[in-house]
Amino acid sequence: MKNKAYNFLGVPDISLKDARFAILPVPFEATVSCLPGTKDGPASIISSSNYVELYDEEINGEAYLAGIKTLPAEEPDYKSLKKMVSNIRETASRHVKEGRMVVGLGGEHSVSLGLAEAYFLQRPAMKVVSFDAHADLRAEYQGTRYSHACVMRRIRELGCTIYTAGVRSISREEKDFLETTEGAEVLFAHDMGGDWPGVFNGMLPPGEYYISFDLDFLDPSILPETGTPEPGGFYWNETIRFFRHFIGRPDIRVAGFDVVELAPQKNITPSSFLAAKLVYKIIGLLAVNNGWL
Amino acid sequence: MKNKAYNFLGVPDISLKDARFAILPVPFEATVSCLPGTKDGPASIISSSNYVELYDEEINGEAYLAGIKTLPAEEPDYKSLKKMVSNIRETASRHVKEGRMVVGLGGEHSVSLGLAEAYFLQRPAMKVVSFDAHADLRAEYQGTRYSHACVMRRIRELGCTIYTAGVRSISREEKDFLETTEGAEVLFAHDMGGDWPGVFNGMLPPGEYYISFDLDFLDPSILPETGTPEPGGFYWNETIRFFRHFIGRPDIRVAGFDVVELAPQKNITPSSFLAAKLVYKIIGLLAVNNGWL
Amino acid sequence: MKNKAYNFLGVPDISLKDARFAILPVPFEATVSCLPGTKDGPASIISSSNYVELYDEEINGEAYLAGIKTLPAEEPDYKSLKKMVSNIRETASRHVKEGRMVVGLGGEHSVSLGLAEAYFLQRPAMKVVSFDAHADLRAEYQGTRYSHACVMRRIRELGCTIYTAGVRSISREEKDFLETTEGAEVLFAHDMGGDWPGVFNGMLPPGEYYISFDLDFLDPSILPETGTPEPGGFYWNETIRFFRHFIGRPDIRVAGFDVVELAPQKNITPSSFLAAKLVYKIIGLLAVNNGWL
Amino acid sequence: MKNKAYNFLGVPDISLKDARFAILPVPFEATVSCLPGTKDGPASIISSSNYVELYDEEINGEAYLAGIKTLPAEEPDYKSLKKMVSNIRETASRHVKEGRMVVGLGGEHSVSLGLAEAYFLQRPAMKVVSFDAHADLRAEYQGTRYSHACVMRRIRELGCTIYTAGVRSISREEKDFLETTEGAEVLFAHDMGGDWPGVFNGMLPPGEYYISFDLDFLDPSILPETGTPEPGGFYWNETIRFFRHFIGRPDIRVAGFDVVELAPQKNITPSSFLAAKLVYKIIGLLAVNNGWL
Amino acid sequence: MKNKAYNFLGVPDISLKDARFAILPVPFEATVSCLPGTKDGPASIISSSNYVELYDEEINGEAYLAGIKTLPAEEPDYKSLKKMVSNIRETASRHVKEGRMVVGLGGEHSVSLGLAEAYFLQRPAMKVVSFDAHADLRAEYQGTRYSHACVMRRIRELGCTIYTAGVRSISREEKDFLETTEGAEVLFAHDMGGDWPGVFNGMLPPGEYYISFDLDFLDPSILPETGTPEPGGFYWNETIRFFRHFIGRPDIRVAGFDVVELAPQKNITPSSFLAAKLVYKIIGLLAVNNGWL
Amino acid sequence: MKNKAYNFLGVPDISLKDARFAILPVPFEATVSCLPGTKDGPASIISSSNYVELYDEEINGEAYLAGIKTLPAEEPDYKSLKKMVSNIRETASRHVKEGRMVVGLGGEHSVSLGLAEAYFLQRPAMKVVSFDAHADLRAEYQGTRYSHACVMRRIRELGCTIYTAGVRSISREEKDFLETTEGAEVLFAHDMGGDWPGVFNGMLPPGEYYISFDLDFLDPSILPETGTPEPGGFYWNETIRFFRHFIGRPDIRVAGFDVVELAPQKNITPSSFLAAKLVYKIIGLLAVNNGWL
Repeated sequence: MKNKAYNFLGVPDISLKDARFAILPVPFEATVSCLPGTKDGPASIISSSNYVELYDEEINGEAYLAGIKTLPAEEPDYKSLKKMVSNIRETASRHVKEGRMVVGLGGEHSVSLGLAEAYFLQRPAMKVVSFDAHADLRAEYQGTRYSHACVMRRIRELGCTIYTAGVRSISREEKDFLETTEGAEVLFAHDMGGDWPGVFNGMLPPGEYYISFDLDFLDPSILPETGTPEPGGFYWNETIRFFRHFIGRPDIRVAGFDVVELAPQKNITPSSFLAAKLVYKIIGLLAVNNGWL
Repeated sequence: MKNKAYNFLGVPDISLKDARFAILPVPFEATVSCLPGTKDGPASIISSSNYVELYDEEINGEAYLAGIKTLPAEEPDYKSLKKMVSNIRETASRHVKEGRMVVGLGGEHSVSLGLAEAYFLQRPAMKVVSFDAHADLRAEYQGTRYSHACVMRRIRELGCTIYTAGVRSISREEKDFLETTEGAEVLFAHDMGGDWPGVFNGMLPPGEYYISFDLDFLDPSILPETGTPEPGGFYWNETIRFFRHFIGRPDIRVAGFDVVELAPQKNITPSSFLAAKLVYKIIGLLAVNNGWL
Repeated sequence: MKNKAYNFLGVPDISLKDARFAILPVPFEATVSCLPGTKDGPASIISSSNYVELYDEEINGEAYLAGIKTLPAEEPDYKSLKKMVSNIRETASRHVKEGRMVVGLGGEHSVSLGLAEAYFLQRPAMKVVSFDAHADLRAEYQGTRYSHACVMRRIRELGCTIYTAGVRSISREEKDFLETTEGAEVLFAHDMGGDWPGVFNGMLPPGEYYISFDLDFLDPSILPETGTPEPGGFYWNETIRFFRHFIGRPDIRVAGFDVVELAPQKNITPSSFLAAKLVYKIIGLLAVNNGWL
Repeated sequence: MKNKAYNFLGVPDISLKDARFAILPVPFEATVSCLPGTKDGPASIISSSNYVELYDEEINGEAYLAGIKTLPAEEPDYKSLKKMVSNIRETASRHVKEGRMVVGLGGEHSVSLGLAEAYFLQRPAMKVVSFDAHADLRAEYQGTRYSHACVMRRIRELGCTIYTAGVRSISREEKDFLETTEGAEVLFAHDMGGDWPGVFNGMLPPGEYYISFDLDFLDPSILPETGTPEPGGFYWNETIRFFRHFIGRPDIRVAGFDVVELAPQKNITPSSFLAAKLVYKIIGLLAVNNGWL
Repeated sequence: MKNKAYNFLGVPDISLKDARFAILPVPFEATVSCLPGTKDGPASIISSSNYVELYDEEINGEAYLAGIKTLPAEEPDYKSLKKMVSNIRETASRHVKEGRMVVGLGGEHSVSLGLAEAYFLQRPAMKVVSFDAHADLRAEYQGTRYSHACVMRRIRELGCTIYTAGVRSISREEKDFLETTEGAEVLFAHDMGGDWPGVFNGMLPPGEYYISFDLDFLDPSILPETGTPEPGGFYWNETIRFFRHFIGRPDIRVAGFDVVELAPQKNITPSSFLAAKLVYKIIGLLAVNNGWL
Repeated sequence: MKNKAYNFLGVPDISLKDARFAILPVPFEATVSCLPGTKDGPASIISSSNYVELYDEEINGEAYLAGIKTLPAEEPDYKSLKKMVSNIRETASRHVKEGRMVVGLGGEHSVSLGLAEAYFLQRPAMKVVSFDAHADLRAEYQGTRYSHACVMRRIRELGCTIYTAGVRSISREEKDFLETTEGAEVLFAHDMGGDWPGVFNGMLPPGEYYISFDLDFLDPSILPETGTPEPGGFYWNETIRFFRHFIGRPDIRVAGFDVVELAPQKNITPSSFLAAKLVYKIIGLLAVNNGWL
């Protein structure tokens, strides 16, 4: 409501070279399963972010001062999903090469493939840690290999080791794939107790990571507006606790991250507000741990 | 709410060979412009149709007795829009060859290409009459030639003469195409007065027609739930008057039709109820004029 | 929002003996067809009425000064629909006997039976004029003779002559009943042009009338929130024109009226605001023509 | 969205004799208290079930292979609630006699009376275990003995012992009834800690049970769309834990079950998705423990 | 959704000196009567404008080429309404002095006072023509002289002659004011037939005008999302016809205009799309008639 | 739905002198941050309260028997926020002087200033305990010192010691104020574990308290309909546990309380039902501990 620029957090616009974080909105939706609307996710996160407090009392700082630039939204290309993914990769790659951390706002989960690949091309040892109610490990879905339901399979095929927490919906095909494939590990929801933040950190070896956060990891009670809201999900405090631990680890380096699968029913909702606050919280933790504040 | 079968109108299921009309739900949405939800259109029309009165006092008959069979919904194929369109064409062709009139329920307008082509392959002299707020004559849109915004251009390229009424949103490119192309005629909304049903009938030469009805032809006051609700549209009574005249003409034969671009916000709404009643009204007029009642 | 009493129009509460009009909320819903919510109709009309201007520039007066008292809502009785209807009749009868005009706010249309009967018991020559998209002339519906779909049949059976305008959905059974029964006349929507207010007045012989206004008479564009929103309905100005003519006729006396079948989706909506204004407009015309202002 | 049959889970249709589970939709709503919409519950559960994964990683199987048949929806009968309940009992009895497990989808809670009675007639030693925020033990409510608020009282009167967990809203009359009546036991929400699944199992003696699951047992945060959403309810994981324990007990046999009181605001929502997954989870546990997989 | 700048129409950003039109969003809401949400009006109009076709077939041109610049939103100031209005006046005055036409997007109607005053200070002979369902002529409302319900009274007090069309809700106080005051003329809705565009033009003497368009002038069927949706309003085609005539008059000069009182329920809706198209249509007519295209 | 008076709980109306609790609806909204609608909060709480069970099984009594009177809603005064607050203080003071406990229903949080001051004038030793996701300690916000974002600062300035639990959004300015000011203590959400009810009670010295409950203290999963829904909030059971302990302390006396910041999207929702039940639960605990039952 302030006389703000239209961007993530509504902060004064800065030049690209002063930005450590580049917010990339990817309003892309093609193959959604159940509740539609992920195309409106990025705009909704940006709108809600204008009501997020800039100061964070846990960090004791204003993380936006590390330099956050909102990029123009990636233009959809409906020629094919494959083309869309490669467009995203190209956009992201430019920024990654210039040393900025690209923060992807989805859009459906398939956008993570383009983003992860952009990082992977620069950092081939990079691993991927994802948070998701679904395994997303299908070979193909609804006629395409680029569906959200295939994204972790495609990322695994790039050569990245993948670690996924929170899965509580998986097909027999994906279960078989998991049992016969190396480099793809899943922590199922039914094996996650209150101590999962520590347990999952324990599963993750040192190294550089890309984080892909599908919002359906969270319980539908706190995040109802997503493509397929699976009951039995996870909560805010424990999720933040995981990130505080993980990002604070001296043996871990985070390359970049995305937050995807918001399907907002209005422009500003509790779900989009949470998503905006999650993005800013992760940025804050990264800024502090990289010594940028 | 009656102990009905789940189908259009909730009538007793009949065998395919007894059906003169085959309702084909095509829950396909990929390139929608403004308000999402066309993937839910067909299910919503079917749900609402269960509350439509079977008797029609204008026809003085129960048109469902002519034989209406609801087909399974066409499965989306997200490999590419082109593939999706060819799948629809194949499904529809089987029924057209066996003499059934396929009634397409969209889904976004691009589904009309597959449907129209299925008819055109059997009846190469067929023309297409469409009702639409938009010209849908772009060469390409958002990276694809199979967008809803290109559908009439593609149909024209099949070789069909096309006639569109109700246009009140058009790009310069489409306007230029119209002025330089034969076989594509548009009756603009700003040229349509209260007598447009007669005027438009006057523009349509004798012959066989496929009817494509994009619900955004109607005024958003009576049909708000559509992809791009352009103000200044048309109303129920005048639209029905057009169809009564057109279908009643002895020099006209209707090959088939579709009703597309319903983007319902709930399962049963005034918009979907209107769409269901429109489908049944057209079926009724066809049944009477073909002597099937 | 003013420091108002909670009642129709939010006007100062008056004693029953000073009231010429008694507003009776009947939040009753049991057999609705398509869109649920008529049980919330009365409260919604009352809430919206608090935003209706008390002065009416056409009447050049403030009709509430004639004396309007809002009664407590009629308590639902789910023993059976028959019991519910007789409860309503008893409540209304008390007021009718004492000379107050009871204004029923529905609730589903079946409540009109109890209201009309209360008047009829005092005034056996009374006729009923109704506005409805449906004929409501079924012998029985969904296992009961007291459904909204039977209400005009039941009222006819009391001995009242009934006149209904606006019908655009009717079953074969009801059509047959109409053709073989005296004392039940319908003006079908497809026979109603812009001059219907005069035509319908011409059909209505002199005498005393009860008015039952089912809001689905109106076009769904102006009144979408009703049980079964049939397209091709009627508009505000022409409806008010009818009432101005009808209530102004020296050969007509209005006994009472109801407005039913509002199914609001929120507490205050354009539909409920219209319904509230319609109720107040009719009250205003009655107050002026009875010389109460 | 697949080219599925319209039924629970969207699986291929099977013949009645191959079905171990018969899904009975009962779209019945008459006496709801607070938030309307239970009549749309069954259709919404079925729609959402089409997005539930057929494989269950906890069961390590696809429970639908045990044989699930979706019956036509029970037709409402508004003659009286008593009549409606007896209709349900008759429909269910046919299947119970033929050895199928009827799975009731509500609809308001009063439908459980007809279902439970159908089982009880075959198995007079059967007990009933219910999950509910309300005691539902009133003698009469809103003029009828067949309201949802009376259903457990009526079931107790059949002769069944009843056990209810989760109650956090009860009237003085019901409290007095509980204290003076044998065979009706309630575990109040304020006495249920994190170990309630074990505690409640401990209260339930060996034998055969009918399970009635009123969705308002759950916390409104995970199940907001129900008739009366009482705060302080229960969560997904603990509820599933109860069922895993209960259904796995060798001294327990489950006769049948229902899931009622979903009042969906749209066709597919997080609430209806949860309800669909709950139904399938219980079916899966029953299939495994009965050796049907 | 294209890779657009975030501004009205989503067109490439231009410098202030190249702009003939300056869009000023005023997301201000304090005293709304009935349906809340006008604070979200400007953002919603801007979002919807991104789906409005840039070419206008009636103008045969792309009006945005005349130079349209979207200003930052006016920051709310809740010290008092008086202060808010003076802030708006100051912002607008800067642009008016530099020769740009400020196009105000509301926000509630009280914002028009600041805008009109900014123009009036430069052009003391300016008149105001407004479109409104309400007279907005109260001396004071809800404790303040700066409510939306007083805005035309305040503008009259500046010294402007005011002309309002469409009024169908007025208090006795306002009626008395009208009858005793010069320089304030109202064309009541009940006196407006199909020829009102001509009649109203006939009432408007030559000169320079500020146009204030309260969206509740329109019928709630085409514009339901406004503060107080009065039935019996006006339609798109006749409204555009008025503006085509009025703006085309050689004896009329338009100083500036605003479109206010959109209360959108979601970010993009049929109401906000209509409002966006109306703003662009008026800009187009002004651009053509000023010779800017 | 019962034939109830329109008041909190729908109980029989009583005279003011018999009332121990006076419910004061304050439908005031002017400076809300994110999700609009607090002006509808009081009416929504009252509507929902009609579905709250009068008997409370934990108290084993019907607390309404202690005497609850619903006052007319406080009329908004938009002259300025300062004026509005002083109006509330005057209304509340009359009741406080006569010994009634005023229960404020918001409306935005700024209304608490008027209420707290009314008590403070009679009881200058009174402290304030508040529940809030935000510190509300700004000196000024959006041009006014009377915004909801400043309310605890203003209350501190009266001379009250203030204690706030649940804060998880705070600005640097407020943090600095806290660190440099005596008499303002905050228990941050990130320091609150499962034992916070005891910890917070331990922070609160003996004495007399006013309780201000901003509903955004609660987690958005159980209370999504509030102005700014901050994730990581608190739940029903633990909150009730706090109040049971606090109100039961022999060294504590509660002067009065308010429940504010409900922004309901419909008239009756899970959020408003929870708010109504919370108000009644606190009343019940006060009634028991004051020996009024």
